[in-house]
Amino acid sequence: MKKIFFTPGPSQLFHTVSDHLKEGIKNDIFSISHRSIEFKKIYESCDYKLRSFLDIPENYNISFLSSANEIWERIIQNLVINSSSHLVNGAFSKKFYDFAIINKINAKEYYYDKVEYNINDIEEDELVAITLNETSRGIMCDSNKISSIRKKLNDSLIALDCVSGIPSIPFKVSDVDTFYFSVQKCFGLPSGLGVWIYNDRCIEKNKSISPKKITGTYHSLENLHKKSKIFQTPETPNVLAIFLLSRVLDDMMKIGRERIIRETNYKSALLYNTIKNHNLLSEYIKDQEIQSKTVIVSNTKKESEYFIENLKNKNLIIGKGYGSAQNQIRIANFPAHSKESIELLCDELTKL
Amino acid sequence: MKKIFFTPGPSQLFHTVSDHLKEGIKNDIFSISHRSIEFKKIYESCDYKLRSFLDIPENYNISFLSSANEIWERIIQNLVINSSSHLVNGAFSKKFYDFAIINKINAKEYYYDKVEYNINDIEEDELVAITLNETSRGIMCDSNKISSIRKKLNDSLIALDCVSGIPSIPFKVSDVDTFYFSVQKCFGLPSGLGVWIYNDRCIEKNKSISPKKITGTYHSLENLHKKSKIFQTPETPNVLAIFLLSRVLDDMMKIGRERIIRETNYKSALLYNTIKNHNLLSEYIKDQEIQSKTVIVSNTKKESEYFIENLKNKNLIIGKGYGSAQNQIRIANFPAHSKESIELLCDELTKL
Repeated sequence: MKKIFFTPGPSQLFHTVSDHLKEGIKNDIFSISHRSIEFKKIYESCDYKLRSFLDIPENYNISFLSSANEIWERIIQNLVINSSSHLVNGAFSKKFYDFAIINKINAKEYYYDKVEYNINDIEEDELVAITLNETSRGIMCDSNKISSIRKKLNDSLIALDCVSGIPSIPFKVSDVDTFYFSVQKCFGLPSGLGVWIYNDRCIEKNKSISPKKITGTYHSLENLHKKSKIFQTPETPNVLAIFLLSRVLDDMMKIGRERIIRETNYKSALLYNTIKNHNLLSEYIKDQEIQSKTVIVSNTKKESEYFIENLKNKNLIIGKGYGSAQNQIRIANFPAHSKESIELLCDELTKL
Repeated sequence: MKKIFFTPGPSQLFHTVSDHLKEGIKNDIFSISHRSIEFKKIYESCDYKLRSFLDIPENYNISFLSSANEIWERIIQNLVINSSSHLVNGAFSKKFYDFAIINKINAKEYYYDKVEYNINDIEEDELVAITLNETSRGIMCDSNKISSIRKKLNDSLIALDCVSGIPSIPFKVSDVDTFYFSVQKCFGLPSGLGVWIYNDRCIEKNKSISPKKITGTYHSLENLHKKSKIFQTPETPNVLAIFLLSRVLDDMMKIGRERIIRETNYKSALLYNTIKNHNLLSEYIKDQEIQSKTVIVSNTKKESEYFIENLKNKNLIIGKGYGSAQNQIRIANFPAHSKESIELLCDELTKL
C-alpha cells in the first residue's frame, strides 16, 4: 500500500495533483513567460474560480505570495501603522503577533488558552487578527463567533488566518476585511504558495499609510494589487503552484464546497469518537465548540512515538505534537483524505 | 515537434525535470513535513551539491527564498543601514537600486549604457551591487572585472546578481561577499525559488546593524541563517523546487561545470554569428567584452513579431525585447538548450 499522509501540512496531495503536473509538463506551463497571455489566463481563471468556490464578493482582491509567513509580514507592513490586536490561541497566531512587535507596532495580545474568544475583551483597533483554525493546537473558530466580532468592531480591519481552514471550515467572507491561506493544507498541493485576499477597505487603509512608512518593495500591497488587476505578479511567481491550484479548484468545484464541509464534519466526528473511546488517547481540546475539524489533536498516555511508529508501519503517517509538545499527536482531516482513509486510520488507531 | 523555449526565463526545462517530478510524486516528497529528517536530508544534500558544483568556500552560507526580487529586498534590509552603490546597466540592476531608495537608503546609481563598468568611478560603500548578467539587455560582466572591483574595494560588501548567469558564466566566488540566483534561468527549473549565498562578513555586518533597524521577520538574515544551519527554512518552503534543484545539480555535476561553460560559449558564438550575418538583425550590445553569453539580444530591422511568430510556427519560442523595447528579440542560451537546438534555431533564423 502507498503511504497516506495525515500530517497537518505539507500533507496528502489531492488525488488529481499527479495528473495535473503531467499535463503542466506536457503543455509547457512551467516554461511560459510570467508576462505572457497564457500565464495571465491561468492567473485570471484561478482568480475567477477562487471567487466562485469561496464566495468572495467583488470588492475583494486576490494576490499570490509565497507563504502565510510572508502574508503576516505584508499585512503588518501594509495595513498597520501604530497598533494591532491579536487573539492568540496557539503558536501561529502568536507568531503573527511577534511579527507585529518586530515591526515596532504597538501590538496587544489577547491570550485564549484552549477556550473560546471572549468578545467582551476585544476593542476596536487598526487591525484585529483572528484565526479560523489554529494549526498548532487544533482550535477552530465558529462562523457565528466571527460574525459577532464583526458586529462589535465596525472600524477595525479584521484579518482572518485561514491557513488550515479553507475551504473545509465555513465562514462569511464579508465578516472579515482580509484573509489568507497556504495551499499545502486543505488544498492538498505542494507547498510554496500563499494566497492573500483583501477588500477595498484594506486598499484605502494602505493608501493612507503608504506615505508614512516603508510598506515593502516588490510585494507592497500597492504593487501586488496593481499587478493583480492585470492578472500578473510583481516578480516571477511560483507558476506551477498557481496552475495546480487552478486545476484542483476545478476538481473541488465538481465535488462542491457543501459536500466538502459535510464530509469534513463526518470524518472529524469519526476521529474524535475514536479518540474518546481509546484508553490511551484523549482530546487535547475538550470544548466541542472550538475543536478543530481539520487538525485533530490528541493527548497520548503512552509516548506519541508509539502511535506514530506503529501507524507508520501500516503506511499511515500522522503528525507529532507541535514544536516540543510531548505525548501529543496531530491528525489532518483535509479534502484529500477520503472517508475510507479516515475509517482505516480510525480502525488502526483503535487496535493500538 | 514539441516546442523549445528560448525565452529568457521561465525557459526550457532541463530535460530531466519531468522524471524528477515523477520520482518526487512516487516517493511522497511533496507530502513530507518540512520539519522532518527526510526534508533536512534533501536540504543538506542540495546545500552540499551547490557548494561542490559552484566552488563555494566554507565561510559562505546558503539560504532558500522565493525569488531574486525577495533577495534584493532582504539584502537591503539586512546588510545596509545608510548607503549602497549600484552599478546599473539594465532594468534589473535598476530595480535593485529602486528597492534601496524605497527603503530610505542613500543609494548611489552608477549608470553604464551598454559599456563596461569603469572601476575608476566606484568608491567604497556599505554595499556595492554588481551584475554578472543583466537579463534585460544581455550584458555580462567578465570574471577579471569582478576581481578588479574586489581588489579596489576592500571594505565594501560586494553583492553579485547571478540570476541568469550561474552556472554558465564563470566568476570567482571569493571575489564577492554575497550572490544570488533564481532557478528558472540557467538551472531550467519551474520558477518559485531564489537561492541566496552570503559569507561570514555578511553575517557580521547583519549582527552589527540588526539592533538599529527592522531587518524583516521570518526572513531576516539572522532567522534564515539560524535555520539554514540545521538545514531548514523559517517558513514552509517550496519543497518541490528545492528537491528539483538538488536533482538537477546531480545531472549537471555529471556533465561538469567546465563543459557547461564551454558549450555555453560555443552556442553563444553560433547565435552571435547568425545575428551578425543576418541582413535584418544586428547585435544590441556591440562590445564583445560585455556581450552576454546566456541572454543574446538582437535588434531587428523588421518588427520583432516577424521573427517571434515565424519561429513560433516552427515550435521555436524566443523572447521579445524587455519591457516596452520594440524591434528587439532576446534568445536564452541556457544549459537546457542543446547544441542541436541552438543550431536548429540559427538555421531557422537565417531563413527569415
